Amino acid sequence: MTSFLWGARFDAPPDAQLIDFASSFRDDLAIAAFDIRASRAHVLVLERAQVVSSGEACTLDNALVTVGRELADRSFDGDATFEDIHSAIEARVSELAGAEVGGKLHSGRSRNDQVATAIALFARDGLGGVASDAAGLAVEFLDAADRELTAESLMPGTTHCQPAQPILIAFWLHAAGVGVARQIRRLDVMRDSMNRCPLGAAALAGSSLPLDRRLAAAVLDFTAGPSENALDSVGDRDMVLDTLYACSTLLVHLSRVAAELIAWCSPLVGFVRLSDDAATGSSIMPHKRNPDTFELVRAKAASVAALLTSVFAQLKGLPISYHRDLQESKRALIAGLAETQVSVRAFRRAFSSISFDRARCNAAVVDPFVCSTDLAERMILGGVPFRAAHAAVGGRIKTAEAAGAPLCGDDGAPLDPLSSVRAKATLGSTNPSLLRQAILATRISLLPSLAEAALYKEETQ
Amino acid sequence: MTSFLWGARFDAPPDAQLIDFASSFRDDLAIAAFDIRASRAHVLVLERAQVVSSGEACTLDNALVTVGRELADRSFDGDATFEDIHSAIEARVSELAGAEVGGKLHSGRSRNDQVATAIALFARDGLGGVASDAAGLAVEFLDAADRELTAESLMPGTTHCQPAQPILIAFWLHAAGVGVARQIRRLDVMRDSMNRCPLGAAALAGSSLPLDRRLAAAVLDFTAGPSENALDSVGDRDMVLDTLYACSTLLVHLSRVAAELIAWCSPLVGFVRLSDDAATGSSIMPHKRNPDTFELVRAKAASVAALLTSVFAQLKGLPISYHRDLQESKRALIAGLAETQVSVRAFRRAFSSISFDRARCNAAVVDPFVCSTDLAERMILGGVPFRAAHAAVGGRIKTAEAAGAPLCGDDGAPLDPLSSVRAKATLGSTNPSLLRQAILATRISLLPSLAEAALYKEETQ
Amino acid sequence: MTSFLWGARFDAPPDAQLIDFASSFRDDLAIAAFDIRASRAHVLVLERAQVVSSGEACTLDNALVTVGRELADRSFDGDATFEDIHSAIEARVSELAGAEVGGKLHSGRSRNDQVATAIALFARDGLGGVASDAAGLAVEFLDAADRELTAESLMPGTTHCQPAQPILIAFWLHAAGVGVARQIRRLDVMRDSMNRCPLGAAALAGSSLPLDRRLAAAVLDFTAGPSENALDSVGDRDMVLDTLYACSTLLVHLSRVAAELIAWCSPLVGFVRLSDDAATGSSIMPHKRNPDTFELVRAKAASVAALLTSVFAQLKGLPISYHRDLQESKRALIAGLAETQVSVRAFRRAFSSISFDRARCNAAVVDPFVCSTDLAERMILGGVPFRAAHAAVGGRIKTAEAAGAPLCGDDGAPLDPLSSVRAKATLGSTNPSLLRQAILATRISLLPSLAEAALYKEETQ
Amino acid sequence: MTSFLWGARFDAPPDAQLIDFASSFRDDLAIAAFDIRASRAHVLVLERAQVVSSGEACTLDNALVTVGRELADRSFDGDATFEDIHSAIEARVSELAGAEVGGKLHSGRSRNDQVATAIALFARDGLGGVASDAAGLAVEFLDAADRELTAESLMPGTTHCQPAQPILIAFWLHAAGVGVARQIRRLDVMRDSMNRCPLGAAALAGSSLPLDRRLAAAVLDFTAGPSENALDSVGDRDMVLDTLYACSTLLVHLSRVAAELIAWCSPLVGFVRLSDDAATGSSIMPHKRNPDTFELVRAKAASVAALLTSVFAQLKGLPISYHRDLQESKRALIAGLAETQVSVRAFRRAFSSISFDRARCNAAVVDPFVCSTDLAERMILGGVPFRAAHAAVGGRIKTAEAAGAPLCGDDGAPLDPLSSVRAKATLGSTNPSLLRQAILATRISLLPSLAEAALYKEETQ
Repeated sequence: MTSFLWGARFDAPPDAQLIDFASSFRDDLAIAAFDIRASRAHVLVLERAQVVSSGEACTLDNALVTVGRELADRSFDGDATFEDIHSAIEARVSELAGAEVGGKLHSGRSRNDQVATAIALFARDGLGGVASDAAGLAVEFLDAADRELTAESLMPGTTHCQPAQPILIAFWLHAAGVGVARQIRRLDVMRDSMNRCPLGAAALAGSSLPLDRRLAAAVLDFTAGPSENALDSVGDRDMVLDTLYACSTLLVHLSRVAAELIAWCSPLVGFVRLSDDAATGSSIMPHKRNPDTFELVRAKAASVAALLTSVFAQLKGLPISYHRDLQESKRALIAGLAETQVSVRAFRRAFSSISFDRARCNAAVVDPFVCSTDLAERMILGGVPFRAAHAAVGGRIKTAEAAGAPLCGDDGAPLDPLSSVRAKATLGSTNPSLLRQAILATRISLLPSLAEAALYKEETQ
Repeated sequence: MTSFLWGARFDAPPDAQLIDFASSFRDDLAIAAFDIRASRAHVLVLERAQVVSSGEACTLDNALVTVGRELADRSFDGDATFEDIHSAIEARVSELAGAEVGGKLHSGRSRNDQVATAIALFARDGLGGVASDAAGLAVEFLDAADRELTAESLMPGTTHCQPAQPILIAFWLHAAGVGVARQIRRLDVMRDSMNRCPLGAAALAGSSLPLDRRLAAAVLDFTAGPSENALDSVGDRDMVLDTLYACSTLLVHLSRVAAELIAWCSPLVGFVRLSDDAATGSSIMPHKRNPDTFELVRAKAASVAALLTSVFAQLKGLPISYHRDLQESKRALIAGLAETQVSVRAFRRAFSSISFDRARCNAAVVDPFVCSTDLAERMILGGVPFRAAHAAVGGRIKTAEAAGAPLCGDDGAPLDPLSSVRAKATLGSTNPSLLRQAILATRISLLPSLAEAALYKEETQ
Repeated sequence: MTSFLWGARFDAPPDAQLIDFASSFRDDLAIAAFDIRASRAHVLVLERAQVVSSGEACTLDNALVTVGRELADRSFDGDATFEDIHSAIEARVSELAGAEVGGKLHSGRSRNDQVATAIALFARDGLGGVASDAAGLAVEFLDAADRELTAESLMPGTTHCQPAQPILIAFWLHAAGVGVARQIRRLDVMRDSMNRCPLGAAALAGSSLPLDRRLAAAVLDFTAGPSENALDSVGDRDMVLDTLYACSTLLVHLSRVAAELIAWCSPLVGFVRLSDDAATGSSIMPHKRNPDTFELVRAKAASVAALLTSVFAQLKGLPISYHRDLQESKRALIAGLAETQVSVRAFRRAFSSISFDRARCNAAVVDPFVCSTDLAERMILGGVPFRAAHAAVGGRIKTAEAAGAPLCGDDGAPLDPLSSVRAKATLGSTNPSLLRQAILATRISLLPSLAEAALYKEETQ
Repeated sequence: MTSFLWGARFDAPPDAQLIDFASSFRDDLAIAAFDIRASRAHVLVLERAQVVSSGEACTLDNALVTVGRELADRSFDGDATFEDIHSAIEARVSELAGAEVGGKLHSGRSRNDQVATAIALFARDGLGGVASDAAGLAVEFLDAADRELTAESLMPGTTHCQPAQPILIAFWLHAAGVGVARQIRRLDVMRDSMNRCPLGAAALAGSSLPLDRRLAAAVLDFTAGPSENALDSVGDRDMVLDTLYACSTLLVHLSRVAAELIAWCSPLVGFVRLSDDAATGSSIMPHKRNPDTFELVRAKAASVAALLTSVFAQLKGLPISYHRDLQESKRALIAGLAETQVSVRAFRRAFSSISFDRARCNAAVVDPFVCSTDLAERMILGGVPFRAAHAAVGGRIKTAEAAGAPLCGDDGAPLDPLSSVRAKATLGSTNPSLLRQAILATRISLLPSLAEAALYKEETQ
């Protein structure tokens, strides 16, 4: 079992330190299953091209299935002396299928197109998985929103971290869910854009073997067919960029939700209580109950976005075509998907442990100044120009503040937050009945991802 | 003419240094036209809601059109004491329409939804403009590809910057064009995703005025209708992220094309000659002919990708809802679109000045080792397993190299690069007739962008 | 007046669009004064090398001083058709000194070493300015700390945003100041590292004119003398990286202080009140008082750190030696220093407008659980192993919480926050008298920067 | 053996999924030795404070030494159910020393100061190691420079990737070495800045135990003593930023050297040949000899710089004091140092395998236009103003180019590159004897790092 796919021309074997430095073997285990899948498609293509006989194709396919199983159950996990998983798999196939037949597997392909295909398949799968997890999280937000909507629980809506207007707690929860739903659409769009199959691009120029690239594309579910230019294909890493970008936007959105939950967990604010199983204690302060999960997700948003930054910098100024620099982008892809997946799942788990302290939330809305916009808008409906109404209310606040009195409506009664919320009249507002419709609409928009998630769960059971 | 849209409650005017620090006025000029457009839509909505009469609506609309013209011809350019362009426009409208009517313009909206709407419109327009310019550049690549294809001019295709296999110059040019076409698809996808109208979200909770948000969305061409949750809308900057992401991938792709052209312009390689009008000289070395445009585009890819990095970091950990931090993201958006546009245009101009030195390119392919894969593939077609063929050819190279002899085929004649190229049989390969089809397909894929570009040019004339 | 320093060999003039794209003229105005300064040093060197006579040196020096003055008072501001400020200055010098003498100014130098020298001088000056401003801000923190220390005002110290232990407000203010002082040390270290003069490196290989580079280094105050290798010098942009790095760490530190102040300004927490002159209102909500300055500084930390990211990406993979890509790094340098300077100054101004609401801060410490560590430490001093003490106190908290009772000491009295603070015994702790010493020590560490700031202010008056 | 250092107050145990998400145990193994070292110092402090008796101190110290050895030889490697290595070590100490004595180890400290201390020690050690490796690499560059200097081998010096002036190959090699030496200075400066000991800051406010923080600082070699403010200490991650920054600048510099070597390895240029043991072959093209090591180092420069980006984004907007977000910065630190170390070592190994093809390098300088500056400078020495000389030479080049003739001196003979190099007269130029001195000076500047490297190697043997 030799460890390299090349070398006949070389006088000296490669230096062990350098091979260790360059090896992507350990990282590659994450994409091994996709390499097997692509290789099985390649065998079909070789058979149709009559480079291998039907019998040989069968032998190769069986060997690939076996290696795939061995990798899955860890009975084969290669050997770090291999440059990459691709060499290791081919070597194992040659052991299982014999050197004669195994030696035909790599006909008409290069690691360049092989790697590009495997990571595209891996990225698509990863994006699907993240979308499923994110849909589950969005549903958590919407379920909580429905619970709070039923209670018509209020909280101060803020801008600039300053109380601005009364809102329903459910409205904030819906905002969190709508944001996730938007990120899921982006995950889907990115996945759909990975629709051209690199396999058959070979090293950079295509192959002189009569390979039917449309067959490979169809088998591997690349809906737009084979890639358009082999040279472009071997150096293109847009699937890495797109994946990391979509993961970054999702985590950055969650970092924002997290930041607010962290602030609300503080006893000083006290809007939210983290149950004991999702809080972390202190090694020195016996009374602490820390929201570590949300803090870590917030930090991981920075980490994953920086992986995207790294790939942009890796690609910048690199000639089109394949260079070994691209290997680093594969590491970023694998790490980015893994971090995103655990983050989304942990966030969901931690979120399921929180509860809103409705009494404290409601109490925090009693500052009647937060209803000042409503007062101005009532004046507008009475015909007063907005600028005049704004100024008039500003003056009333100043007077009320000086007198230590609440801000009152024209009836002399303090403005009421629940009335404020109910008075909202626009689509997408915090008005309870409009919100109920909006929650339902968001639920419907999540159905495709949830259906796919269910399907996926079934498949992998 | 007062400079602030608020203040009645305050005892002291804002500090001049802080206002100057916080003002986005100068940056905002880039988005002024889009703010006018959104305000005109808002007037329609106010009229339908009977907050303004038809006569008032007409007065306001006329005033907005006038301010738009004044801004375009620089006869009004506000005043840096305004916090932002929005305040300046409203103040000017009040001058033109009278304080009574002008004071009604801001009814039911906040700068929060106003800014979000204006930058979404601006981003969509900018993405369309960049796509048009990029389509023009892609056509340049394809035109050059057609010229070189007719000549069947060859060059060494490389991986790892090492000659790998013979390719047609046209094949490289098509790869450059295919890459741009892929970026155009991303630009379009991103633009299409900006399909929900923030206007009417007001400060964060919606409005108690009966505003028909569907009308605003329709007028402003947001195909999916109004945004789903007001709180989410005022803090969402996905349109900034999406725009900067698409600009970054486009420029990073161009940085790769640029890097190769820069290397080829060197007299040491000499594949490409830059004509005098697109080269830059040296202040000290009279003989220099420098490819500055390509170097600058390469650098700008780094700059624009870093703008995306900046926005991710700005958003990370920010509570959902509006915060003044978001203003910095607007600056990044405006700068990113402007840099991308001038870069694409300059690249196109410089590229139109280069010519390939076919003689030098062809001469560089004579190293017969670059045809080694072809030799191996011929053996495969004869039934030899690939691994054995690879090893056999490797051995032959070693022998030939030691003897200072070329690598020969089985007929004893040195391997011929043009035959190698013609022998390629796969879709997307460097085979001349397959390449001709691929170029045509890429041209067709560009048609929508080109049609839009023509339309756009017509509109703006 | 010709606009280019080259061209004799060229058949066609450069394309106007490309020159406009490549011109750094507008950005360069920021570094013009430093180019003048470096050119004056170069004249001295040329005189010593007898390339110009003493009379010619005098003429050139006078012309340079004149151009410098014209640039400062805007009576000369070049012309955007110049490629850069360096060409413009030389052209204007030739007008003033005559073409014969003016034509000698560029002898033995290239724009490569000229630009490197000018931006090193600019960076050093900028770092000095930022350090001065930061020292002023640090003093504000320490002055506020002294005020609060005298009052022995308390607040809950937090980790994970959760109340952890009682601290003095002064302790938090000192932490903010210590952080700034540490950043000032970094600013100084970075400035000191720019101690080798690039002037005389010429294009990349040095000059055959007998130029005394040590003279230029001495005159321009590069303490380690001329740069060591001309090729390295023309492509080295470490001064840009170092400057942007130091600015980034300073702003990121301030973003952390800002985040806490923003949270405390919220009426929900209410620890801090922003006076009217430093708060911003809302266009729709008459009652708002927003901490916009702190929000913007927080965002600018992200922007400036991303400028560093951009320069890393620009430099990555660029051959050593000069490339036009480096021009983009100059833009990042200029923008980074400008943004940092206005941010530090605005932060100082806004901070001077806040006041702590001592009553609310003190009241927030009454949760006696925050003294739990003290209780455990008292047990330790009595011989109980820490782990046992930690567990015991944890148990007592659980009991107290269930009973709705406060956490009491062994004397049965609730634990007292002020006693907790006073009981602290370690250097760097929140103990009032140790803190007083620490504040003083920090003040002393700032003296050199403050002295330099005073000196600098005097000079520029 | 319990897995948590807290919990007495909690009703439910932490959720397993969340603990797994939050655990830093696996990453922490890299810093375990430094945690042991800091804990041993803490034991000394506890003994002096009489919190533990001398006998107990001895028992604890022995246990810590034992755990350290167990961790080193992998006989103890904790258990992933621990939150972090700190908990695991304390638990193991308690097993070895008994619960009574072991339970005293954590007296007066928190994981907050403990982690900060361990990672500062780790960062200092890592920076020292990288500096040693980098010094070894710089010496390789200088050794190669001396070899080429002896041969007076020439190559075309370039700017903008265009031949500019003749230089010695040794001059380029010295430039590469000078750049590394400058990065070593930065590594040293950063290490020296980590001179204040966080230990004793406890959770955030210091301790009421009479701990002598100066003792800990002295034992752990923090030359400036204990940190100044406990709250600042627990949240400060400047040691992470500084380390990643210094690693980034080093790798970005190497990426530039790498880029040039990669270009020169191409047979099209052929200046450099990679020996077989450091080149990588192709799985499909038997003739390839790829410079993978240099490509990977180039890519890793992007990866490590992005780790710095990630930490900036993690810290941005985080309140001062400790938050769990900081854990992610520890991961970035560990990864950044590890990647930098292997990259520098692999680069050195690969560089030791290259050789310059002097014949091809010399041949590439024959384009006599590269001596044009020399011609102009000779005219200057004869009294002609530079601008006139530049124009005159430009004209001569145009004439010569049209005639297909070389550029000749006033003696009618073609300009000679070696004479050009020898004629250089300035410090830092490519003049052979000045270069010899410069190489020697750079060698001397490296001596401290080399001495430390030798010492370090001795220690660890």
